[in-house]
Amino acid sequence: MDGPVRQRSLWQHNLALVLGEVGRAEPTSRARIAQATGLTRATVSALVEVLVRGRLVDEVGPAPRGGAGRPATGLVLSPAGPAGLGLEINVDYLAAAVVDLTGAVRHLEVRQADQRGRAPDEVLADVAELAARARDAVDLPLAGARLAVPGLVDARGLVRLAPNLGWRDLDVLGPLTSAPHWPGLPTEIDNEANLAALGELSTTDRERSFLYVSGEVGIGAGIVLDGGLLRGTHGWSGEIGHVTIAADGPTCRCGARGCLEQYAGQEAILRTAGVPAGEPLPADLAVRRLVELAGAADPATVSALAAAGTALGIAAAGVVNLLDLDAVVLGGSFAPLAGWLCAAVERELATRVLTAAWSPVPVRACALGTRAAVVGAAGAVVREVQAAPASWVDG
Amino acid sequence: MDGPVRQRSLWQHNLALVLGEVGRAEPTSRARIAQATGLTRATVSALVEVLVRGRLVDEVGPAPRGGAGRPATGLVLSPAGPAGLGLEINVDYLAAAVVDLTGAVRHLEVRQADQRGRAPDEVLADVAELAARARDAVDLPLAGARLAVPGLVDARGLVRLAPNLGWRDLDVLGPLTSAPHWPGLPTEIDNEANLAALGELSTTDRERSFLYVSGEVGIGAGIVLDGGLLRGTHGWSGEIGHVTIAADGPTCRCGARGCLEQYAGQEAILRTAGVPAGEPLPADLAVRRLVELAGAADPATVSALAAAGTALGIAAAGVVNLLDLDAVVLGGSFAPLAGWLCAAVERELATRVLTAAWSPVPVRACALGTRAAVVGAAGAVVREVQAAPASWVDG
Repeated sequence: MDGPVRQRSLWQHNLALVLGEVGRAEPTSRARIAQATGLTRATVSALVEVLVRGRLVDEVGPAPRGGAGRPATGLVLSPAGPAGLGLEINVDYLAAAVVDLTGAVRHLEVRQADQRGRAPDEVLADVAELAARARDAVDLPLAGARLAVPGLVDARGLVRLAPNLGWRDLDVLGPLTSAPHWPGLPTEIDNEANLAALGELSTTDRERSFLYVSGEVGIGAGIVLDGGLLRGTHGWSGEIGHVTIAADGPTCRCGARGCLEQYAGQEAILRTAGVPAGEPLPADLAVRRLVELAGAADPATVSALAAAGTALGIAAAGVVNLLDLDAVVLGGSFAPLAGWLCAAVERELATRVLTAAWSPVPVRACALGTRAAVVGAAGAVVREVQAAPASWVDG
Repeated sequence: MDGPVRQRSLWQHNLALVLGEVGRAEPTSRARIAQATGLTRATVSALVEVLVRGRLVDEVGPAPRGGAGRPATGLVLSPAGPAGLGLEINVDYLAAAVVDLTGAVRHLEVRQADQRGRAPDEVLADVAELAARARDAVDLPLAGARLAVPGLVDARGLVRLAPNLGWRDLDVLGPLTSAPHWPGLPTEIDNEANLAALGELSTTDRERSFLYVSGEVGIGAGIVLDGGLLRGTHGWSGEIGHVTIAADGPTCRCGARGCLEQYAGQEAILRTAGVPAGEPLPADLAVRRLVELAGAADPATVSALAAAGTALGIAAAGVVNLLDLDAVVLGGSFAPLAGWLCAAVERELATRVLTAAWSPVPVRACALGTRAAVVGAAGAVVREVQAAPASWVDG
C-alpha cells in the first residue's frame, strides 16, 4: 500500500478480504468469516450482501456447523460471477479458455496449426475469432482477457521478441482489439511461461515459490516467489533458455554460445536422438514422436532426453541456489517427457544445490499439462477480480 | 495486508506514511505532506505531533515555501531518534556500526583479526563487546541489532553453514545474547551479502532491482527486487558462488564441480595470478596484494582478474536473464578490484543477456565498499523503525 488508507479503500480491502475467505474454505458462513477476519458480524453481513447482489457469492444450503446454534447459510463463490478469458498464441496452435470465478474451466478450444511464417494480422484475426467463440460458448460476464505469447512482452503490450514466431517489436494489442470479431474486453498480453506458472500456482496450496520451466521450440520460465509472479524491471524475467551451460558451447540463435536451448531445446533433443530431420516436424508432432520412441525404450532417444535433463538440471540448480525455491516444475513439451527428464534434473539438483542435503528440491511435471498457459491466462483475470471485487459490484 | 484494516492499523499505516514523507524530501512541511498523501491537514498535524513527541521528527527553521502564505515549519527526521546497531562477523574481521534514523553512520569500528579456527563462543563474546562499545559511543536509543554472518542463516537465527568460518548448525543468537557485555537488544541474524545489498539499496534511488555480488573468501549474493530483499523460502537465496560455470570443472569444497567460486573466488584468483602460496594470506592482505599487482599492470594478475570477471559475467548474465534486473553491483573484495573485473563482466552481459541490446545492464563497484554489510545491518534496523514507527511512540 503506497497511498493513505481511507474509508473507501478500507471498504474495498475488506470486501476483497471477505471474498477471499469465501474462496479459501467453501462452503463457509458469515460467522466463520467474522471469526477468521476479526471483522464484526454486522460488517461481514453487509459485505456479503454486496457480494451476493453483485453475483460474486451464492448462498447455498446450511454450512457445516462449527458449534451450537441454528445452522448458518452456506456461502460459496458464484459460478455465474465474472469470468476470465484466456488466449494463447503458440508456435503450433492457438487456444482460448474461459475460467469462472470458482476457478473451473468452462470452455477450452485449441486450434492446432503451425503459426510460423504467418502474417501477424492473420494470426491475431484468428485469435479474435476464438475469443468471440469463447464468449458465445459460455453464458457468463467476462471481466477481461489475457493473451499468452511465447516471447518477450513489455509493459505496454508490445511484443519485443518472439523468435520462434519471427516477431520483433510488434504491436499486438492494436490489431487484436480492432479485429472484426473481437469481443471488446479489457486486455493484457503476457509471456506464456509466466501465465503457465500462474496456472500452475492455482493448482497448489503447498508450493508458494517455484521455477516453472516451459519447453516449447524454445525454453522459457515463469518464476513464482511467495505466491506471486516475478516479472522483473521490464517484464523480461524467466529467460532460462539463454542461461549459459558451457561458455564455449554451440552458438545459439540469440548470438551467445552454450545457451540451455542448445542442450535442451526441442531441436537439440531431436538432433541428439537422431530423429530424421528433413522437413521439420511441427512441434506437437515432434514431441509425440519423442514420447513414442522413449516409451519404446529407444536408446538414442532415452539418452538424448537424459542429456537434456542434465542441462535442465544444471540451469535449475543455479536458479535454486540463487532464489531458494520449493520446487521445479516441468511444463510445456517437457511435461509429457518428464518421465525421462526428471531423474537427471533431480540428480543435478542434489549435487549442485548447496542446501540440497537439508532440503531436497522436488521436480515434477506440471499439473495442467500443455494447457497451463491458456488456463493460467484466464485464471489471471479471475485473480484480479478476486483481488479487487469492488469494481464488479455497486458500492 | 493479510488482516482486516481497522482504526488502529489505519493510524499505524498513516503514521508510517507521514514519517516516510518526511524522509523522502527533507525538509518538508505539514502542508506538503497533506498534498502528497491526500490526508487532511488536521490528520497530518496530529500524526506529526506524535512523531515529534516520540523524537522521530524534528521541527527546524521555516521550510522553503511552495506558494503564498506564511512560511511553514520545516520537518526533518531526527538524528536523535531510534538508531540501529549493525554487527558483522567475517573471516578476517569483526565490525560494529550505528546508523541513526536519518541514515547517517554515527559509529563504526572494525577489528581486523583472522577468525578462522577460533571457538564460536570467543568470537561471539568479542562481538558482544563491540556491541557494548558501540552503545556507549553514541548517545542514542538503539531500536535493535542485526548481525551479518558469511553463511546460510535460517529463520530461527541458526547458522546452517558458514564454510569459511568452519561453522555448521550453530546457534549464534543464544551465546551472543548471553555473553557478558551484550547490551540486551532485540537481535536478528542475516547473511552478509543480503545485508550488504540492503546497505547498497540505501545509497541509491535509481536502482530498485539489482544483483549485489560479494567477493570474500567465498562468493555470495544479495538479490534486491523492486526495492526489497529476496530471501527465498528458507532464507537461503543468493548462493551465486555455487552456480555452475562448467559442468565438468574443478571440484568445489561444496562437492559439486565447476562452481563460480572455483573461477572467481579469492583462492582461484590468487592461484591463477601466481601469487606465492605458502602460508595463506589473510583475506584482506590478499586483496591488497592483488590491487597492488594489478595496479602495477602485472600481466598474470591482470589476466587472472579478467578470467574471474568472465566467470562472474557468465553467472551474472544468467541471473539477469532470469530476473530482469537494473544493475550488477560488485561488492566485498570485488569492490577494490572492480577496475580490473568490470570490463569482462560487462562483455559477458552484453553477449549473453537476451535483452542487452535494448536495455544494457550497468556494472559498478558498490558505493559502501567493504563496509556495506555492517552498515546495511544497522540500516536494516532503521528501516524497520521507519516502516513501523508506531512501536516507538506513545499511541
